[in-house]
Amino acid sequence: MTLQVKEILHQEKSKYQDVLVFQSTNHGNVLVLDGVIQATERDEFAYQEMIAHLPLNSHPNPKKVLVIGGGDGGVLREIVKHDCVEEVTLVEIDEAVPRVSKKFLPAMAVGFQHPKVKLHIGDGFEYLKSNESSYDVIITDSSDPVGPAESLFGITFYDLMRKALLPEGIICTQGECQWLHLQLIKEVLDHSKKIFPVVDYAWASVPTYPCGQIGFVLCGNTPGRNLRVPTRRFSAEFEASKLRYYNAEVHKASFVLPQFTKAALGL
Amino acid sequence: MTLQVKEILHQEKSKYQDVLVFQSTNHGNVLVLDGVIQATERDEFAYQEMIAHLPLNSHPNPKKVLVIGGGDGGVLREIVKHDCVEEVTLVEIDEAVPRVSKKFLPAMAVGFQHPKVKLHIGDGFEYLKSNESSYDVIITDSSDPVGPAESLFGITFYDLMRKALLPEGIICTQGECQWLHLQLIKEVLDHSKKIFPVVDYAWASVPTYPCGQIGFVLCGNTPGRNLRVPTRRFSAEFEASKLRYYNAEVHKASFVLPQFTKAALGL
Repeated sequence: MTLQVKEILHQEKSKYQDVLVFQSTNHGNVLVLDGVIQATERDEFAYQEMIAHLPLNSHPNPKKVLVIGGGDGGVLREIVKHDCVEEVTLVEIDEAVPRVSKKFLPAMAVGFQHPKVKLHIGDGFEYLKSNESSYDVIITDSSDPVGPAESLFGITFYDLMRKALLPEGIICTQGECQWLHLQLIKEVLDHSKKIFPVVDYAWASVPTYPCGQIGFVLCGNTPGRNLRVPTRRFSAEFEASKLRYYNAEVHKASFVLPQFTKAALGL
Repeated sequence: MTLQVKEILHQEKSKYQDVLVFQSTNHGNVLVLDGVIQATERDEFAYQEMIAHLPLNSHPNPKKVLVIGGGDGGVLREIVKHDCVEEVTLVEIDEAVPRVSKKFLPAMAVGFQHPKVKLHIGDGFEYLKSNESSYDVIITDSSDPVGPAESLFGITFYDLMRKALLPEGIICTQGECQWLHLQLIKEVLDHSKKIFPVVDYAWASVPTYPCGQIGFVLCGNTPGRNLRVPTRRFSAEFEASKLRYYNAEVHKASFVLPQFTKAALGL
């Protein structure tokens, strides 16, 4: 799989990473951090819809939502589709990402414009420590576990997320690729199980990620909660008019794992 | 996505196409026809298991199976896992494909060794014309609709497959990629609906195909037959020991389509 660069739109070395945006010939504008594609305008909807609606529709009534990472704004755009959500805070360590996204990826960064959204530039660890028992849903939209996002895959971070949740809280984190990172995913699930009573794994097809797909780790604060079946549903009309990847059937199917993944992860 | 070539193992211009096998650095040996990757030893199981077990487990009692294309033998390897199957005929137009696969892709070509399997070198159209009302399941494991496989996506071919089926018969064909070929898929489904009472579409994750996934068109001869739920199931023990991608839950989930595909295909 190759993307052809039509024009480099922006390139900088921020405090944390290399930030690049290029215009591709047939995937729209593309955000690249430290040389890894984060999102293309053509297929970002699949990832953003899934990482947002899987946890939000598994929660009975999410009002306060925290996003860690996700500085392009695409996850925000999806979260504010839930009328019940009253407040969304996005904590991004690198101010360059929202700044550059607002300029070159407006269809994602539109999420920042919603009145329910607050942007906080800072470290996710520190933010969690000073916001215990505060959120119904926490979404970690991180890059890969090398560079600035490495610690976001460790047990300490999962413990902090648990403490920042309200009762019935749910977290959803970017869960890498079952074809490439099974051992890493297993480690994340294993340490999550020490912290959360409910731990599960879902996946979606996203062509411009390695192997054409990406996973999501979901953990719930309520023993016995089945995250695989949406607690709340969009109307069929809403699904048809406002969504391009997620729907209630996709929610359920996304937790069904190929036999090799199921066996390796013990799910 | 790139595969690194370690060594070219075989290259020839057959009567029908360019046939290439190379050893890759981390995907095993790779079969390439007319410049398009057909199978890699690393992930071929996902495709072969799905194109075989989706139709076979949707049929109440498949005894006679026809494969058109599939000259690497991988689909045969999967079909003969069904004890109820009594006879499998594979019709491949290009003798070079099984010959080369037997030499360089033995884990796939092992399918040819089973005593229930017959290999027929010839044209799928001609074979179907002279074998009416003969098969419980027909699987078309073709390359893309350019070059020798082009006519395998047309209505005439689907009409011939229907005539070659026994009552309760089911066909399953390689169905291209929903991210790239939605219009083509729609056309195939539309003409299939003129011929078959039941038409459906499933998909699977296969990293080395374009966009990391591939679809399957399934058509059934019996009005009202729900192909989405397996009529027969492997035991959990069989799934755990003999399969790497397919299981009964994967069967059902593979028919769940992202919202944009569902809307475009009217499914």
